[in-house]
Amino acid sequence: MDAEIIAVGSELLTPQHIDTNSLHLTEKLNNLGILVRFKTIVGDSTDDLAGVFRAALGRSPLIILTGGLGPTDDDLTRDVVAKVLERPLHEIGELRQRIQQRYARLGRPMPQNNLRQAQVPEGAEWLENRNGTAPGIWIEHKDNIIILLPGPPRELEPLFESTCVPRLERLGSGGRIKTRVYKIVGLPESEVDQLIAPLYRPFTNPTTTILASLGSIEIHLRARAATDREVETRLAELGDKIELALGDHVYSTKGESLEEVVGMYLVMRQRTIAVAESCTGGLLAERLTRISGSSTYFLGGAVCYTNEMKIRWAGVPAELIQIHGAVSQSVAQALAEGVRSRAGSSIGLGITGIAGPTGGTQEKPVGLVFIALADERGTQVREFHFPGDRDRVRYWATQMALEMVRRRIRD
Amino acid sequence: MDAEIIAVGSELLTPQHIDTNSLHLTEKLNNLGILVRFKTIVGDSTDDLAGVFRAALGRSPLIILTGGLGPTDDDLTRDVVAKVLERPLHEIGELRQRIQQRYARLGRPMPQNNLRQAQVPEGAEWLENRNGTAPGIWIEHKDNIIILLPGPPRELEPLFESTCVPRLERLGSGGRIKTRVYKIVGLPESEVDQLIAPLYRPFTNPTTTILASLGSIEIHLRARAATDREVETRLAELGDKIELALGDHVYSTKGESLEEVVGMYLVMRQRTIAVAESCTGGLLAERLTRISGSSTYFLGGAVCYTNEMKIRWAGVPAELIQIHGAVSQSVAQALAEGVRSRAGSSIGLGITGIAGPTGGTQEKPVGLVFIALADERGTQVREFHFPGDRDRVRYWATQMALEMVRRRIRD
Repeated sequence: MDAEIIAVGSELLTPQHIDTNSLHLTEKLNNLGILVRFKTIVGDSTDDLAGVFRAALGRSPLIILTGGLGPTDDDLTRDVVAKVLERPLHEIGELRQRIQQRYARLGRPMPQNNLRQAQVPEGAEWLENRNGTAPGIWIEHKDNIIILLPGPPRELEPLFESTCVPRLERLGSGGRIKTRVYKIVGLPESEVDQLIAPLYRPFTNPTTTILASLGSIEIHLRARAATDREVETRLAELGDKIELALGDHVYSTKGESLEEVVGMYLVMRQRTIAVAESCTGGLLAERLTRISGSSTYFLGGAVCYTNEMKIRWAGVPAELIQIHGAVSQSVAQALAEGVRSRAGSSIGLGITGIAGPTGGTQEKPVGLVFIALADERGTQVREFHFPGDRDRVRYWATQMALEMVRRRIRD
Repeated sequence: MDAEIIAVGSELLTPQHIDTNSLHLTEKLNNLGILVRFKTIVGDSTDDLAGVFRAALGRSPLIILTGGLGPTDDDLTRDVVAKVLERPLHEIGELRQRIQQRYARLGRPMPQNNLRQAQVPEGAEWLENRNGTAPGIWIEHKDNIIILLPGPPRELEPLFESTCVPRLERLGSGGRIKTRVYKIVGLPESEVDQLIAPLYRPFTNPTTTILASLGSIEIHLRARAATDREVETRLAELGDKIELALGDHVYSTKGESLEEVVGMYLVMRQRTIAVAESCTGGLLAERLTRISGSSTYFLGGAVCYTNEMKIRWAGVPAELIQIHGAVSQSVAQALAEGVRSRAGSSIGLGITGIAGPTGGTQEKPVGLVFIALADERGTQVREFHFPGDRDRVRYWATQMALEMVRRRIRD
């Protein structure tokens, strides 16, 4: 059984709002083996909503509408659904009483339009909402199941869990849907695709999607099967081949971020780390310390934006900066070695570069970054030329610094 | 002219991803007086996409499709649009050359499938993409305008701005929609609403929306009128009253972030800043240095995760830590004063606290953070108890540190 989610509300068509309910619903539906095939967002307009709902009836067995169940005039979902299905609305005595009691408890007069929330289309079931006045509504209509849910997440989520999940389980597709995600650093998207397309092409289950995000490529495999075990077998059948083909370019197979993976390696190998960064301005330290428990391996970071701070905090010799300039291989090396010895860590990282948009020259353009890694085996320095704006250069620089650590410790 | 946005990609139908491109496009379209009436998300399936696209052709004069223009087999948008419109794809010589040259420059062999990106439906215009290989595509078909844009925001955004906005302006709806955003720190949402509800209630144009985001409250006014001038008058009529009512709680009226506002103040007053942070792990330095040009006022940051680094980098006396503990008012003060004197900056900031999830005690629970600001007038220390998880505590701590600087310099 495939599903479609329709989010109703003009505010969801502004630049400021986005429909997040559908993420929660998608996760819950996938756990039940139900795939979401369409998501639509439509404003508070009778005609627009009716059109979208009619299209959904023709293509999706399960339709979930969220929002537009409130008491005000622009809450149209209940009325439009009733009209399209040709099921007149009836007031439910119990719902009317509940609403009246709620206002009595609050000691406030009840606005008359609140009683709209006591109305339900003919032949529909209402679903108890413990956190608000608008009940959910469950309609079985010909070959479709239609569910109406209130928009506020704190109402929608418990209501869906307690009333819809058990009903959908009983209807039982019995199936399961799971996603496996491989994350890769250091290869461009088209090269990844060339390597793995011959592997995934014969498969329709799992399906394969390749996504390029900032600083890494993700491969998503999505399988569906009757049981947890079968779905895992299907994922492994294709996934293991992909993992083998990409080798050590894969840094994550369970959704972990690169800083998480590096953290796990550091803990496993009982190593510690300290960093001295210039153009990344603290982003490297920030990424390393995002991880809960990072205080066991992260000792400290120096954000050396000026030459003086490079000298004072990381012990970079002033002559080095004079001779080679602050953005140079030698200064990167001195930052890494200096911060390592000052913090007494097993590993020291140094980053110096030009993040832009200003500060570049012909000889040292925006995007030029030197990254050094110092440990007991010596110091490795790499030169990079990152494309893009300030944010991208900074992010890429921290990504490659973390990748250097990953490869160094893994060996 | 109303618009519809169709986001293509199976990953957008998983619980992990959401379509954010449509927010950017909606803002740009609204500025042109174009209202977005529908948003649809559909997976990488020929039939599903064809169905959604056909429905859009029947109801929306302007249709924007995002994503699915990449080089891989699951990138279907170009082919499906060509098929539905019955316009065969033709290879454009210039596009072929550009793609080949790009690979030649990188010194890498070009995967054959990349040439799909040189194909364009008959009678369509291609739109230059300066940040990737997939060009945009502009099609005028009967009464519809259809725009195909690449999915990555760093490609989509400049491409839309430089090629589509001028074309849409020439087509001219005449009307204007504009949003004014006030950002507030230090007041809860309900209090903001109580203060301004009597002001905005009489207005239907602009409309008012209050949004609570991490660390700040935003008030969005949206007005629509025939001319830029009229729309500005409408925004000012309500906006000026709101600004007056909220006074110095408003830190931004043009969309600036708090770190941007603080940066502008520092430049204006010719002050410099250095920071010593523990639980925020570099996030404060990172936020300050996100701003291009921050090297004129930001001198350096010490991420002192261990006691030794607090002593070595910020000169915190060891006895202070022994007596009061690392998370204490005295250590925050010593961090701020120490980093100020070591960096020779006008302002020093110190942060120490417990971000969690572990490390809390009954006496010093997770969320406890001390923030100190030192300048020539002395040192001010504040104690905070932030709710929420590690990310929220870290973000809130940097937000309040920046707010302390804003208030201190503004005076």
